[in-house]
Amino acid sequence: MKVIEYRGAGGIEVLGLAERPLPLPGPGEVLVRVVAAGLNRPDVQQRRGLYPPPPSASDIPGLDLSGIVERAAPGISWPCVGDAVCAIVTGAAHAEYCAVPVEQCLTIPRGLSFVEAASLPEVFFTAWNNVIWLGRLNEGETLLVQGGTSGVGLAAIQIAKRLRGARVIATAGTPEKRRICLETGADAAIDYRNPNWPALVREVAPEAGVDVILDAQAGDYTRPHMELLAPDGRLVLIASHRGTEAVVDLRAVVRRRLTLTGSTLRPRPPAYKGRLGRELREQVWPLLESGQINTRICAALPMERAAEAHALLDANEQIGKVVLVMDPALADSEPSGRAAG
Amino acid sequence: MKVIEYRGAGGIEVLGLAERPLPLPGPGEVLVRVVAAGLNRPDVQQRRGLYPPPPSASDIPGLDLSGIVERAAPGISWPCVGDAVCAIVTGAAHAEYCAVPVEQCLTIPRGLSFVEAASLPEVFFTAWNNVIWLGRLNEGETLLVQGGTSGVGLAAIQIAKRLRGARVIATAGTPEKRRICLETGADAAIDYRNPNWPALVREVAPEAGVDVILDAQAGDYTRPHMELLAPDGRLVLIASHRGTEAVVDLRAVVRRRLTLTGSTLRPRPPAYKGRLGRELREQVWPLLESGQINTRICAALPMERAAEAHALLDANEQIGKVVLVMDPALADSEPSGRAAG
Repeated sequence: MKVIEYRGAGGIEVLGLAERPLPLPGPGEVLVRVVAAGLNRPDVQQRRGLYPPPPSASDIPGLDLSGIVERAAPGISWPCVGDAVCAIVTGAAHAEYCAVPVEQCLTIPRGLSFVEAASLPEVFFTAWNNVIWLGRLNEGETLLVQGGTSGVGLAAIQIAKRLRGARVIATAGTPEKRRICLETGADAAIDYRNPNWPALVREVAPEAGVDVILDAQAGDYTRPHMELLAPDGRLVLIASHRGTEAVVDLRAVVRRRLTLTGSTLRPRPPAYKGRLGRELREQVWPLLESGQINTRICAALPMERAAEAHALLDANEQIGKVVLVMDPALADSEPSGRAAG
Repeated sequence: MKVIEYRGAGGIEVLGLAERPLPLPGPGEVLVRVVAAGLNRPDVQQRRGLYPPPPSASDIPGLDLSGIVERAAPGISWPCVGDAVCAIVTGAAHAEYCAVPVEQCLTIPRGLSFVEAASLPEVFFTAWNNVIWLGRLNEGETLLVQGGTSGVGLAAIQIAKRLRGARVIATAGTPEKRRICLETGADAAIDYRNPNWPALVREVAPEAGVDVILDAQAGDYTRPHMELLAPDGRLVLIASHRGTEAVVDLRAVVRRRLTLTGSTLRPRPPAYKGRLGRELREQVWPLLESGQINTRICAALPMERAAEAHALLDANEQIGKVVLVMDPALADSEPSGRAAG
């Protein structure tokens, strides 16, 4: 099968197509013929040599996909051969075939194409894990999304608005991106390129502050973030692009009962992802089917043009998801898979 | 009524007895004739001017007490006039009478004296709030208690061992205190005066590290604490005696999914304390009655000798609780109150 390979660490010049043997589905796994796969920030970080895959993961990039089950290990009741699924994986989605633990498979929401389905898992699993589980966003609380037009940002805005009735403040670096944040449901959109952005957030936040912050920047954003938190507020980090250290005011942690936490989903076991997936299927998938939650595709490019796809993320000008297409014939079609039992 | 007053901020010379009018129980409150009251670290910090009482709290110190209900606001089904109770309060327990929200009252465990009952609320509420609720200590996990012979430390060791089957590592500054930690149930006791204490903890902790750390020191302990945490580990701060700032490794927070949090219980509303109290009554009080969990009284001194009591905490040589006695005739007797309905 054809796969995308990183030949060393660096810019898009390290990208290449290669031939690899078909993966064998292990116990509890299905082999999926990949129709489309998301390109996510960690794929780019891995290409740059900044984010090595976890010890047991493949060196082939790619963290989510959609496709059709080609083969299933014995004893699996769903999905069956021929079923359309989307899935989150620990790697190896940028390939024509991928072996996936069944817990990590989800039905494709009715009405969505394979390309749209491939854009869902990584960002919705990440948003749910960090905003709902770690951030424990409650009904009517205020969420600050740092980087509102990232895939995770757009998912977080919609989950917070549609499922928690939260007040959402998003940041974005261009007027166009801020417009998209508002269109997606944010109550306010702030320019993080303005050095006074914390004061601008403070102006639109409730007097007590912000209850939950979702942030991939860390570094020098951490101090203003901790200051912006309301009593019992939670800062949830999903990466540390701006720096890996910060001075934290521990007295404020005690007195205002603040929480600083963070996570990576990738090394989590299939059972954990399965629990996340069940909540997504029950709570988010119906809203994707009814159109109350949407996925935004920035570009869908055949795997031969992976370099163009990476260049879009390198420039950081994409709004919404960039998707790689392995099977152009099926990419835009709406699958007709059976739902999970 | 007689109360203990702080005349300015400083050493034990600022302590004095004063006359104050009897407090009036407001709606949902009972007036308790205080038999005994705990002396806690925050009382000493308040005396030193380092811990101002929350805006709505009394200037009279004292955070927990035992006594007999003297009067009750209308519509209160429990406790009734004549019932013996112990309670956590936001202040004003170092007095002959104290008005207490009913949610914050608890029955006195059978077999315990008023002095022993007065030693329970602040430390068990604090240990439960931070180890069980914020720290989410699970069955079989490892807990590090920084300062194992403090009142909160001894409560935390016992809760973790007896109710969670946890592995407990405690620190203490003298051989005698370390002996008490082990006697109380800790699996290991480490000398925090040894500059290599983090390595000593590492030696006795499971390979992955410690799951929960309960700490009142903060400051320069924070970095080794974060390093000692296992994946998904939680550092819970209840004060910041060694310093109010620390550099935190944010990449470790993301990659190892660490949590840094903390709390003060005092400003929490009665409903929150009521929820904590119900869990204590259901899960801890039976073990106090059966003798599987104990309270350790270091000294019980009449309120006229409050200066001696404070001096014990100033010297930091006490092991277990220091209690002030307002009614010496009842102090050591076992009350015969009715249990909550």
